[in-house]
Amino acid sequence: MSHFHVEVRIKPRAGLLDPEGKAIQHALDSLGFEGVDNVRVGKVVDLEVEAPSEKEAIDRATQMCRKLLANPVTEDFGITVSEPTSAGGSEA
Amino acid sequence: MSHFHVEVRIKPRAGLLDPEGKAIQHALDSLGFEGVDNVRVGKVVDLEVEAPSEKEAIDRATQMCRKLLANPVTEDFGITVSEPTSAGGSEA
Repeated sequence: MSHFHVEVRIKPRAGLLDPEGKAIQHALDSLGFEGVDNVRVGKVVDLEVEAPSEKEAIDRATQMCRKLLANPVTEDFGITVSEPTSAGGSEA
Repeated sequence: MSHFHVEVRIKPRAGLLDPEGKAIQHALDSLGFEGVDNVRVGKVVDLEVEAPSEKEAIDRATQMCRKLLANPVTEDFGITVSEPTSAGGSEA
């Protein structure tokens, strides 16, 4: 069993309103940042997952998204797995 | 001027408490997901930025993080820029 570092990005589905994104866009505009458009805000969840292989780590993270992390009606998710850290690995 | 797609990931700084992460870790455990550890929750902000170059797009996003998006005391941020979309680009 290896430990994988998994990053899950959960974002509002395209086409759905994103009031937090709109608020940030207005705030950036007020601060003088021009040419910024289409701001969308989501969540990112980092976790360490123990799994026999990278594929299995991705499968588990997908199940976690389906069952808990993401709202299947309003959100899309993306998963990135990075190389396994050694079993007793230190944290960077 | 090209349009760049910028993804900003804002995460609680290592060592700081993350109650939302802890809550998710407990919930995953209750759902039967074993071997999950070190859950941390942050924000991801997607934006389209108009800039003359990729480097400039990253610089602007960094300024946005420093001035608005991230709390410099409690949060770290990472920025990813993907290829420019054409000026009148469609949304995927």
